[in-house]
Order: sequence, then structure tokens, then C-alpha cells
Amino acid sequence: MRVGVLTGGGDCPGLNAVIRAIVRKGVQEYGHEFVGFRDGWRGPLEGRSIRLDIPTVRGILPRGGTILGSSRTNPLKEEDGIRRIKDTLARQGVDALVTIGGEDTLGVAARLCDEYGVPCVGVPKTIDNDLSATDYTFGFDTAVGIATEAIDRLHTTAESHMRVLVVEVMGRHAGWIALHSGLAGGANVILIPEQRFDIEQVCAWVTSRFRASYAPIVVVAEGAVPKDGDVVLKDGSLDSFGHVRLSGVGEWLAKEIERRTGKEARTTVLGHVQRGGTPSAFDRWLATRFGLHAIDAVHEGDHGVMVALRGTDIVRVPIAEATARLKTVNPELYTEVGVFFG
Amino acid sequence: MRVGVLTGGGDCPGLNAVIRAIVRKGVQEYGHEFVGFRDGWRGPLEGRSIRLDIPTVRGILPRGGTILGSSRTNPLKEEDGIRRIKDTLARQGVDALVTIGGEDTLGVAARLCDEYGVPCVGVPKTIDNDLSATDYTFGFDTAVGIATEAIDRLHTTAESHMRVLVVEVMGRHAGWIALHSGLAGGANVILIPEQRFDIEQVCAWVTSRFRASYAPIVVVAEGAVPKDGDVVLKDGSLDSFGHVRLSGVGEWLAKEIERRTGKEARTTVLGHVQRGGTPSAFDRWLATRFGLHAIDAVHEGDHGVMVALRGTDIVRVPIAEATARLKTVNPELYTEVGVFFG
Amino acid sequence: MRVGVLTGGGDCPGLNAVIRAIVRKGVQEYGHEFVGFRDGWRGPLEGRSIRLDIPTVRGILPRGGTILGSSRTNPLKEEDGIRRIKDTLARQGVDALVTIGGEDTLGVAARLCDEYGVPCVGVPKTIDNDLSATDYTFGFDTAVGIATEAIDRLHTTAESHMRVLVVEVMGRHAGWIALHSGLAGGANVILIPEQRFDIEQVCAWVTSRFRASYAPIVVVAEGAVPKDGDVVLKDGSLDSFGHVRLSGVGEWLAKEIERRTGKEARTTVLGHVQRGGTPSAFDRWLATRFGLHAIDAVHEGDHGVMVALRGTDIVRVPIAEATARLKTVNPELYTEVGVFFG
Amino acid sequence: MRVGVLTGGGDCPGLNAVIRAIVRKGVQEYGHEFVGFRDGWRGPLEGRSIRLDIPTVRGILPRGGTILGSSRTNPLKEEDGIRRIKDTLARQGVDALVTIGGEDTLGVAARLCDEYGVPCVGVPKTIDNDLSATDYTFGFDTAVGIATEAIDRLHTTAESHMRVLVVEVMGRHAGWIALHSGLAGGANVILIPEQRFDIEQVCAWVTSRFRASYAPIVVVAEGAVPKDGDVVLKDGSLDSFGHVRLSGVGEWLAKEIERRTGKEARTTVLGHVQRGGTPSAFDRWLATRFGLHAIDAVHEGDHGVMVALRGTDIVRVPIAEATARLKTVNPELYTEVGVFFG
Repeated sequence: MRVGVLTGGGDCPGLNAVIRAIVRKGVQEYGHEFVGFRDGWRGPLEGRSIRLDIPTVRGILPRGGTILGSSRTNPLKEEDGIRRIKDTLARQGVDALVTIGGEDTLGVAARLCDEYGVPCVGVPKTIDNDLSATDYTFGFDTAVGIATEAIDRLHTTAESHMRVLVVEVMGRHAGWIALHSGLAGGANVILIPEQRFDIEQVCAWVTSRFRASYAPIVVVAEGAVPKDGDVVLKDGSLDSFGHVRLSGVGEWLAKEIERRTGKEARTTVLGHVQRGGTPSAFDRWLATRFGLHAIDAVHEGDHGVMVALRGTDIVRVPIAEATARLKTVNPELYTEVGVFFG
Repeated sequence: MRVGVLTGGGDCPGLNAVIRAIVRKGVQEYGHEFVGFRDGWRGPLEGRSIRLDIPTVRGILPRGGTILGSSRTNPLKEEDGIRRIKDTLARQGVDALVTIGGEDTLGVAARLCDEYGVPCVGVPKTIDNDLSATDYTFGFDTAVGIATEAIDRLHTTAESHMRVLVVEVMGRHAGWIALHSGLAGGANVILIPEQRFDIEQVCAWVTSRFRASYAPIVVVAEGAVPKDGDVVLKDGSLDSFGHVRLSGVGEWLAKEIERRTGKEARTTVLGHVQRGGTPSAFDRWLATRFGLHAIDAVHEGDHGVMVALRGTDIVRVPIAEATARLKTVNPELYTEVGVFFG
Repeated sequence: MRVGVLTGGGDCPGLNAVIRAIVRKGVQEYGHEFVGFRDGWRGPLEGRSIRLDIPTVRGILPRGGTILGSSRTNPLKEEDGIRRIKDTLARQGVDALVTIGGEDTLGVAARLCDEYGVPCVGVPKTIDNDLSATDYTFGFDTAVGIATEAIDRLHTTAESHMRVLVVEVMGRHAGWIALHSGLAGGANVILIPEQRFDIEQVCAWVTSRFRASYAPIVVVAEGAVPKDGDVVLKDGSLDSFGHVRLSGVGEWLAKEIERRTGKEARTTVLGHVQRGGTPSAFDRWLATRFGLHAIDAVHEGDHGVMVALRGTDIVRVPIAEATARLKTVNPELYTEVGVFFG
Repeated sequence: MRVGVLTGGGDCPGLNAVIRAIVRKGVQEYGHEFVGFRDGWRGPLEGRSIRLDIPTVRGILPRGGTILGSSRTNPLKEEDGIRRIKDTLARQGVDALVTIGGEDTLGVAARLCDEYGVPCVGVPKTIDNDLSATDYTFGFDTAVGIATEAIDRLHTTAESHMRVLVVEVMGRHAGWIALHSGLAGGANVILIPEQRFDIEQVCAWVTSRFRASYAPIVVVAEGAVPKDGDVVLKDGSLDSFGHVRLSGVGEWLAKEIERRTGKEARTTVLGHVQRGGTPSAFDRWLATRFGLHAIDAVHEGDHGVMVALRGTDIVRVPIAEATARLKTVNPELYTEVGVFFG
């Protein structure tokens, strides 16, 4: 049996651990052969691949990124995309495809499998942890760890100068990284995309923290937006960010907090540092187990499924179902952590 | 309402996060007052306590250890122990007790609650992750992270000298730390207490790794034992360790591997480093949520329960049930990771 | 003898280690008493101070920031500033003052000592490492370590997407952090304030790196400027940063590289994360030794001096001389590391 | 020109950074070709080598260990060793040899160069930092960092249980790692090989620390010995360690402290974890600069020299002189840090 593997979408610590587990178990236990497609869907579209065997995957477990490269190429938007992929798979004698990726990558896999009969098994990947059907995705724990360490560091500089420090973390549509790192880092305000924030409430928390003689840390997801977005836009505070507005909420917050409270405020945008580098032990564990279970599904001919974490078990769910909706922070959980605000 | 808090057993990163969450929510939301008992059950036995309020718990979230101190004192083994505890609680006007600890500490809480009517709520704590009823306990992720980082470091020194490196990690009765850190660290052999190991099989894995021109890493839980323990004892290899035999399996392994394979082998015993220091982000998150839910249970008068993690939810389970049996590594999971051995 | 201590300017990991060493040795060996002035020179200006004794400094060695607080207040710019400071010192019975700070803070100390006869001993502090007379200042090693770890992480994300990653690090007038972290992190381009950079050369290095099938990392000090600054300003690329232009060179670079090479480029601005948090072992060692030697100088009545590192020795130099000129990266050293560019 | 490179003795973080710098500069600037000999002197003895070029050294900067392997093989003790080495060099057309190693490795290089006319340039390597003629050697800073982080972690577990924690670190003949990590970690006792320790004094410090309600950390170099070694041996406490006595001083100390003070004591032996893994930023900087300057010396035909750090400069010194005596901790420095004992 000949199995193709590809990684799509933004990179994420743990991708290499998945690839290694698939290849190790596939070769050793099942006698599979492997083809690694380059740069996500672009690989099968353009017929670019590398050989994957045990020497290829040696030593990659602790390495971030993906040895296969990645891209956001979507074959559904390419002329004749699906047919070209089928051709490549046929030409290379690929019997099944393991696709490691987020909503978009897995969405293509679901259609390839359901509509065109290409045997696909999915492995969920989203650093934002916003894929339903799985308790966690790998990469998330690493990102939260990096953000928490940064917040730890910022506390001391905030206290020394009695300044507000705003930390902008990843999370366009879901606030999981902000919520976990903010709670773990002892932040005084956490703002997430799921709930529009009230800048006056934020300033009230900031002020109350200073009254207790401590300096506040505000953690904000890149996708968080203020309640009265219109007013914000009207007074011109936001439009200087133009089309990169989403990545600018941190700086906007610092300026507004300074203007409204009279306290000095500074912003740190963690950016790509959150998604690079060696995966945490938890992510290596999760990614490895995802890989082992994905190749089991391939071996058993169980197609159209995605592996997922439920408690401490790895289960299989239909890909289509898994990508149907975004997993966001529910209001109860946000309220639960709100006891630490201010 | 006046709530007592104590931490018992071995220390564990995240204890302070639990204490902080209990006090923050208890004071702010419910108006509770708090008494912190010193050094586990010794505190209420001897009437030693400190005041716990919001200033006391400030800044303790990222700190390892426990500001309350800990001990292994068991009031059931003390003359008149339970009565003395009841007296202390009555004298100090304590209405309910949150006990943070492992099997022993919680076992006492269960009896105090069930047999003597003292309202208790439990928070599970075991760095070995061997408490059933909860998916994870805090401290475990930190320990696994530290052990994984150590294994990462040992790979390069093993390769440079083409030596076997044996890493002994915590785990007397359960091999969770060995299993997780061994898998995350890319170990070539993982030995756990749940399955007696065959030294000849270990040597075969070691030899096969050298044949592939790589140096092997062997991760062993402190409680792992060889299959033919008697033979081992008879030839005297083990008895030099005397009563600390359990902490000696790493050194014994290195000697046996050297003797049987002719390859140089070295041992590193990670020891207390695994249980100290700042908790990982995951452990801070888990410990904080345990604290928040424990004080909710106290507030609601739901006694005799322990908080537990199930998937991503915090639930409540009867203390007695939770401590009834050890959670060990099941054979299927051990077999699953065995694909990486050798 | 009664000794005052203050910390001025931006915070820096190691400040607390200096304070602890001064107090420990001063109290234990010399029987000194200590007054800690709050928030740099603002403390003696406004008469705000705290008592410093052995319990106050316990446990602060690994903590970033400064327990005394800091500010950029310059008494030479305050009406009657020097006289008010002398009054405070006299009123509080302070016999000598240890000032821990950079060029500005030490410049005031030098004048206080030389012109007004106030016995001062200086401890150099600049995270940028740009103070002449000392081989290193504490905080610098920590900052370089944090930046290097970030660069390590960015490599994997750059490779996975074949993107340029620009990392902006601290360094307004001196490129030490960029040079050390860029070299340690294996950057392909390092830009420092000491040498105006040629954007075309930068793009040539970037392109050559891609030709070798690797993704480039560009490390840039916040104070680096392009050779033809005027042209840059004229085409409007820079002026959107307004008065915070210095912190914007990273984003400007990414845009220019994208425009000129057609390759995707992203920027990470490390910001305050570099100056917060626990000091590295080297910085704790250096800061502690600075503190021990500073209090020796006070005890011996050797005023107007600053402690400094020369090789592995701590020496004393006149404060005025030490702050006379900035220590910048010399062209030979920049050329030496240039072998790794491209 | 054809240049040989070898790494000898115990491995050390930074070896790969040296190799990379030599090859990068040698190939790019001077057009050298390179031969990498395997496993220290064993390589040229047995004629085993690999090709070293720019692709070979890509990506190795952050990796611990040495891609060339290492050994303690001493050609002076091998029959006809020197002649066999000369033959290999001649056969492979090697014009000069860069030897990276400690006292032993460099001692051979010095003799090869001085007595047999083989052009050698040395790069100093000792994780213990005990080579005179250079302020620091690479690997030392990494080891100190790892030991300091371990001590940080042990503080919290010591405090929680009010136990003595003994940490045994590397250092057979010189106490640099113990001294630096002990000072940086806030240890209460530091014991080094240079000064025989008085167990009663150690116990007095331990007791005084407990009286202040804190738990003591004792850092001990593996080569430290008690003052009255004879008495120790007579009562049998030490001889159970047999010929590995040096690695056992930590356990001996814990037992003696328990026996004499009645306080619980535990030992952690850091072992090989200290010498593996990714080098610190400082070590990468130092190792890289050593490599750059070593290949300059080769290019200039300046043989028989070793590169060394003096302040912030890299200089050249005669190999023979550099290895003539061990650099140990002088009594003044030990006294200086003694202010923190107890």
C-alpha cells in the first residue's frame, strides 16, 4: 500500500511529530510506502513530492515547522484542481492520502473523499484550537506556553514602571490562546473575539488595578473588537491600521487606555514567535498519537474520518462533521475566568 | 462562612495556583473568610494556621511549592487525631475544609466527611497522574515537560559518544511520566512499573539502535522492575541499593546494559527537579480551574466531593470513589507507543 | 553608616540582584543601614523611600524588574533639584548613595558627587550594553537569550512557508543585542544602528538565501536606518510611523523586501519581552558581583567611582569617564560576523 | 588548502558552532577544503573521516554535541600513534589541523605541532571552564544556566517540605560551575574542589538557615572533598561508593547532614543533563568567534596557537602555555561569594 501525506495551512509545532508517527508505524507495522507531497495541496496539484521513509523522519520529532512545507493553496479554486490531484495520485500509485491541516485543508479532503472517492484520513491542525470535535489540537499548548512566558516577563517590567502592558496574542475568531495564556499568566484583563469588549470597562479594570498599587497586564486576542466599533472608526483611531486592522487591536488599546486613564501603556505583539520552534511535550504526545491513529485508520480502510482527542482517548469522527463549525469560547467559561479581572 | 485550606503530601507545581483561585473567588464572589492550615494535616492537628486573604495570595500563581507548607502526617495514625482536628476546626470557627492532596490526604478527608460530618471538598494532587476519576492532575504536565527537556539534552551527548543514556524519572506505581516524556523525547526504550521488563529485550532494543548508527536513550520509571527480580537479587546487583532500591533501577540498568552489550552506559536520575519550580501554563490553567470549582462546591454545600477533569470540563465526583483505585497505564497504550522502541 | 540606594532609567533583569547583594554584604559585613529611594531620582526629590534590610531582599535574586521602582526623572531638569536631593539625604541621615542606572542616572550621580560633594558610587545598567568602561552590563545577556530563542523559533516557521522573517530587537544607538542574537540565532542579515544599511544589499542577501532553498531571517536593531533615508522618507514609506519611527524599521523592511524581491515577508517586534522576567545566570552573577563591589567602595569611602567588568574582574572607574561616550559596535566586529550574511 | 578538523574529549554545547564557523569562513573567504575526522584522535589514527562542506554544517549551530563524534583516545598512548596520524594526514593531503578539545586533546596537538611539525591550531573546550589562558570556554555558560534553573526549581520543593536539598554539579578539579550556579541560584552553601570543606561548618550554615525559617540549598561540585577525609573513610560512610566516589559526594553530604542536624535532606545529581542540548546564546557567540579566529590563524600560517577569550577580544596564545596549568577558583573569589552562605 502506498500512502500520501501532506500538511496544509499555517505551520504549527507538532506537524513533524505527526509525519514521523505515520511513517514509523506505517512502515514498521503495516509495510506501507509513503509519498510526501510538498507545500500542502500545491504538491499534488503540481505533482511535486518527496520520498518519505524512516531515515527521512529521523530526528524531526522535536523540530517545529513541517519538513513537507505548507501553503494555503486551495484546489477547489484552481481550474480543474480536483482532477489534477486525482491524476497525480493515480500516476504515483497513491492508495490513500493523510491530510494534516485546518478547516480549509480538511474541507478539501472531505470533498475529495465524499464526492470523488479518493480515500482520505484527516489529522486536525489549528494553532488557535478552534476546531470542534476535538478537545485540543497540537500546537495550541506550545503557543499558550510561549505567550504565558512572555506575560510572566512583562509583569516585572510593568511593575517597575507602573505601566499598563498590552499583549496581543493569536486568535482571529476564537479566544482560546488569550484565555489560557491570560489566565496562566495572571492577566488582569482578557479580551477575546467572541465577546465585543467595552473600552470603558477595560479602563475601569486598569484603574482599579493601579489603585491596589499594581500594574495591569491586558491580554488581547488579535481578533477582539470593541463594542462600539463605529464610534471607534469615526474618531479615526482605528483607520490608520487600514487592512491590517485585526493585527492592530493591541496598539489601539494601548492608545485608548493612555488617553482615557492618563497612565502610560505599551503594546507587545507576539506574532509568529507563537507558532514556531520546538513543540511542548504535550503537543509532541498529542501529535504523535494523532499520527499513530491516522495510519491505523488508513490501514483499516476507514476513510473520510478525522482523528480527534476526547479526554485522553483518540477517536475518529467524520471529517465533514468536524469542520462544520468553529469551536469558540463559550460565555460561561469566559465568565468563570472573569473573577480575576481588575 | 469560614473556610479552611490545606495542602498535603509531596509538593507539586500548581498548589499555589489552587490556593489563589479558591481565595480570590471565595472572597470576591462569596464573601468567605479563609484559614490556611500549615503543613498538611499537621496544621489542624496542632492548631497551626495562617490567615489567607487576597494580599496573601498575590503573585503566587507562577510559584512552585505551596505557601502553606506540606507534610505526610496522617491523622488516622495519630492518637485521637480526628477529634483533635474537629476541635481545631470548631475553635477556629471553620465551616468547611478544602483539602488539596493525593490518595492519602483525600482518604482522610473522605473519612472526616463521611464518618465525622466535617464538610470537606477535595482537590486532587499527584504529580504521578495516578489518581483515577480525573483525566489529569496538575504538576504532571510540568514534570513531563522537565523530563522531556532533559531527554532532548541527553540525545546530543549520547550521539557524540555513542553511549547508552538511561534516564530515571518519577513514577513509583504508575508509568505516566515515563510514558509521556519518553514518547515526547523520542526515547528508544520506555520502562514502566505496570509491566515487568525483560532485560534481554531491553538489550536487544539497545543493540538494534546502535546497528542503525544511533545512540539509544532508555527512560525508566523509578518503580519499574525486571521480570526475573529474584535472579537480579541473587547475583547481588541490586542489594547495594538497600532500602532505596526503587530509586536505583536506573543505575542497575546502566550496569546490566554495559555488562550484556559491551556498550558504555550512563544514568541520570532527574529526582526532585521534576517537582519544583514554576508550573507549566497547562498546570496553572488546570489548578486554577480546580480551585474555582472547589470553592463553588463549598459555597453550594456540596460536600464529600472532589473536583476532576473530564475532557475540558471540570466535574465533581465522590472523594471516596476517586481514591478507590490507582490509575495505571493500560497495556494497549503501552503497546501503542512500543512502535518507537528499538 | 546609612546608605541610600536607587535604580533609575528603564528596567533591566538583574536590578534586584544588585540591591540584594548590596544589602546582604552591607548589613552582614559592615553593619550598614539602608534606605531605598523609590522610582529613581524621583524618590530623593520627593522624599519617598522604603526601609531596606535583609528580610526585604529575600527571594528577589531571580526576579526581574526592581523592587524600588524606576523612573526617568532627571533632577538636573527640576527646579532646585539638586538642593532638594541634598535636603532629603541630610534629613534621612544618608551618608552615601549607590545609584544603579545608565548614562543619565549616573551622569546625575557624577555631578552630585563632583560638584556638590554627595558621596556616590555607581553601578552601570543598560540593557543595550552600550556603556563604555565595562565589558558587559547585566540584563544584556538575558535580552540576547530571549531574542535568540525567538529567532530559533522563527526559523521553522520561515522554512515551512518559505518566507522572510524580520525580527526587530532593542538597540537605539548600539547594535549589540542585534549582533549577538543575530549571530547566535543564525540570522542571514543583521542590521545595526552603527552602519546605515543598503536596502538593495539586504535584498540581495535575501534572494541568495532563497536560491539555496532556505528561508532568510533578518535581525534588525530598532535604531538601524537605511542609507538613503531621504529617499525613503520622500516616497512616504516611513512617515506613517510618525514619531515612533524608530520602532518601525522592522515593518518598513518587511514591506520593502516584499516589494523588491516579490517574496512574502513578516515582522516580529520583540519589544518589552526582552527586558522583563528572570535574569539569566550570567546576569545574576554579574549583577551580584557589581553589588558586592559597590558596597565595598562605599565602605572604603571611594566615591565618584563606578564598578565595571574587565575580563573576569570587577574594577572601579571614575563615573564621569565611564559615561563620557557610548560603546558602539566597531566596524571590524561587524565585518567579522558578516561572513554569515546571505 | 586542505584543513582537518576534530573534536576530542567530553562533549560540550558549542562544538558544532565552532565547526560551522570554521567551515563557513574557510570555504567562503579562503577557499579551503575540509576533512572532518571522526571521534577525536581516533579518526586520524584509524583514517576515518567525513567530508565537511557548507551543506554539512547547515543547521548545526543550535545543536548540542558534535557532528564529528568524540572520544578520549590518546594517540600518545597508542603504539606508533603519532606516526599513524602523520600518515593519515599525508595520505588525505591535509595541510593543517584544527583541534577542538581540552587539556588532553590540545596537549597532543601541541606535541604534534612542536615535535613533529604538523601545523595545528587549537580551540579550547572544557565545560568545567578550568583552562587557563582564556576567560571562558564555551559550554560552561550553558551548564551554569541548566544548573541554575535546577536550583531555582529545588528552592520551592525545599521550602514546601522544609528539607535540605543538596545539588551535585560537574567540576572534578575546579568549582566554577558550582560557584556560578550556586551564586546565581541563591544557594546557601557552595562547596568546591579547591577548598576542602568542614562538614561541621556546613551543618552550622544549614541550621542557621532553618532558624531563619527557610530551607537550605547546598550546591556541591562533584570533586569537592571533606577536610577530614580520613575520618570519613574510617567510619565507612564513603567506601560504599567504591571507585565512583567522586560522583557520590552529594549523597554522602545529604546523609551526613541528616545524621548531624536531624533535618531531612535529599540529593539531586544533575549529571549529563548539564552538558547536552542546545548551547546558550553566549556559548554560540563564543564558539562561533573561536571558530572564525581559528581558521584565520590557519590561513595566516600561525601554528601552535590556541584561540582564547580576553575580555571581549579573541586572542591567540601558544597551545603549550595554555594547557600548562589548571585554572581554579582562587580563595579571594570564594571568600567574596561566602557572604551569602548560611
